[in-house]
Amino acid sequence: TSTYRITLLPGDGIGPEIMAVAVDVLKTVGGQMDLAFEFEEALIGGAAIDATGEPLPEETLKTCKASDAVLLAAIGGYKWDTLPRHQRPETGLLGLRSGLELFANLRPATILPQLIDASSLKREVVEGVDIMVVRELTGGIYFGSPKGVFETETGEKRGVNTMAYTDREIDRIGKVAFETAQKRKGQLCSVDKANVLEVSQLWRDRITALSADYPDVALTHMYVDNAAMQLIRWPKQFDTIVTGNLFGDILSDAAAMLTGSIGMLPSASLGASGPGVYEPVHGSAPDIAGQDKANPLAQVLSAAMMLRYALDQPAAADRIEQAVTTVLDQGYRTGDIMSETMTQVGCKAMGEALLNAL
Amino acid sequence: TSTYRITLLPGDGIGPEIMAVAVDVLKTVGGQMDLAFEFEEALIGGAAIDATGEPLPEETLKTCKASDAVLLAAIGGYKWDTLPRHQRPETGLLGLRSGLELFANLRPATILPQLIDASSLKREVVEGVDIMVVRELTGGIYFGSPKGVFETETGEKRGVNTMAYTDREIDRIGKVAFETAQKRKGQLCSVDKANVLEVSQLWRDRITALSADYPDVALTHMYVDNAAMQLIRWPKQFDTIVTGNLFGDILSDAAAMLTGSIGMLPSASLGASGPGVYEPVHGSAPDIAGQDKANPLAQVLSAAMMLRYALDQPAAADRIEQAVTTVLDQGYRTGDIMSETMTQVGCKAMGEALLNAL
Ligand SMILES: CC(C)[C@H](C(=O)O)[C@@H](O)C(=O)O
Ligand SMILES: CC(C)[C@H](C(=O)O)[C@@H](O)C(=O)O
Repeated sequence: TSTYRITLLPGDGIGPEIMAVAVDVLKTVGGQMDLAFEFEEALIGGAAIDATGEPLPEETLKTCKASDAVLLAAIGGYKWDTLPRHQRPETGLLGLRSGLELFANLRPATILPQLIDASSLKREVVEGVDIMVVRELTGGIYFGSPKGVFETETGEKRGVNTMAYTDREIDRIGKVAFETAQKRKGQLCSVDKANVLEVSQLWRDRITALSADYPDVALTHMYVDNAAMQLIRWPKQFDTIVTGNLFGDILSDAAAMLTGSIGMLPSASLGASGPGVYEPVHGSAPDIAGQDKANPLAQVLSAAMMLRYALDQPAAADRIEQAVTTVLDQGYRTGDIMSETMTQVGCKAMGEALLNAL
Repeated sequence: TSTYRITLLPGDGIGPEIMAVAVDVLKTVGGQMDLAFEFEEALIGGAAIDATGEPLPEETLKTCKASDAVLLAAIGGYKWDTLPRHQRPETGLLGLRSGLELFANLRPATILPQLIDASSLKREVVEGVDIMVVRELTGGIYFGSPKGVFETETGEKRGVNTMAYTDREIDRIGKVAFETAQKRKGQLCSVDKANVLEVSQLWRDRITALSADYPDVALTHMYVDNAAMQLIRWPKQFDTIVTGNLFGDILSDAAAMLTGSIGMLPSASLGASGPGVYEPVHGSAPDIAGQDKANPLAQVLSAAMMLRYALDQPAAADRIEQAVTTVLDQGYRTGDIMSETMTQVGCKAMGEALLNAL
């Protein structure tokens, strides 16, 4: 029996509900495949603020670091939106990313044949879309200094954030992106705003230089405004996209929404060493929290991604992904992906359907 | 007879072709409505670089300042992409914006009933979309300092740009946005990234404070990643959007692309005083330049917008907009908006059709 230590971070809103389903699924698959999981739950986000006053208690980071992988659900909610910045749920998430040095965020946007009609785009535009956004996650304007609100000489207030990248930070994420593209269709589109920003010019220059080491990858460059347009116009032109933290935040969400079913999309955040964090692309949906309405499938697919990439258990991952396909084929749908003639179920019932399928 | 001094900036790529059509249209309408135009052509972008070595000659800014309004086509092309930054076409455009203090950029995204099928989105999602993006244009990360590529103590290169806004800059664009919303459906959505960026928190605080002066406008706030998603999911939820320079660049292009016909969209850039700049949303399309393939309608509609807002000649603007509707109803289409059963025409023939319709 292989034993894995998994830190669970259920967080806020629908987090605990969807996490419960993913844990049940992991336990079942573990039993079938002779894998043992030691789950340790830790606090993050609003839940941590309520319990300890801080969005990322020291203890949580320690637990994460001592584990083989971290499964996160979602953080945040209206309740904590007015707290000072260092006490907000988001600050906990950013702290987790920098604390574990999770510089590479992999966000797939794929569309399941069963859910094509959930997209707001025409079928022929989205059918077969399969995009991987590689987002830099510990640099750029999210972490650059100086930052803050300062008083100017003329007594005005001036809000400031700094978008900065070093060549080393760019090379590091660039390598992950080229290697990701190699395992996919071999097409990498680097997105920046090099026609206006110096930091983007450095980005473009370094990515271009790196490409010499990856002759099997076809590299293109695109400005971020054009990338937003092209994702909408004809998303199938993209295979792998690499970009900075802020542009990646925007474009990965846009790419996810093209599929019409962000309740289905997992993601991975990886560092050079140490455990990665696996989490759904969607948020904590406080408006439907505790009502047994949430879609647990992105959380379940995040667990599959964790099995595949962190724990090197592709067969177990396959099994979970197959179970998701099965329940969709059986017609089970939560409210967010519901369509005519399908069977609407809640979060728990979807979980049971998954266990049956397994 | 009212006489207006108009500076024409044809720029690069398809710029001169589409500008020629707009000038013909203005002359014809002028004759019909007893308006006289004194056109003065000036250099900007790549054309200016080729002629003078600079993307925005002193002379051009002087000519613009002395005119009642500026009609710009488009700038840029591969040819100048490798020049040092201060010599690039984009730098000329940014210089024009700051030189004329054009802090407010109005970018409508509306969909003409005749062209709904050009959209990649489903008909029911885009039918009736009518969004105005109010983008701040002379601040934010486009102009903030420090900026540049610096060497760190450890010998690394570090690219840096600064996203900064003062309360005064935010108030100024905020007022334009609230007033714009008042003339529309009274709904204003302010887009920022206040959960991460201090500059966005200041933005949100100031816009919220301003809203007290506009009780007839319903103000909401949205994070930029969510805004990108919501534009794709259900664009009809938006009326007026206000946001900073970089987010506005990305979101206005996304909003434009929803319509499927960015070759149709005009825009206006306005300052506190002095002439505004009217220009199409689309770029210089160097790949089809000089081939009589370009769609001149966004340029023509930019001229109409200029008549309406800069010259206070709404009847003349109506006449032009009516002519555009007529040629579309007659089935004339350039390649970018072509669909089955329509008549494909080039740039010049579209111009002639417009003159006939007038
Ligand atoms: C919650 C927020 C801080 C976060 C981000 O901006 O990175 C989220 O939008 C995401 O994309 O993971
Ligand atoms: C050409 C470029 C500098 C410009 C911008 O980023 O503002 C363009 O994309 C625009 O939106 O007008």
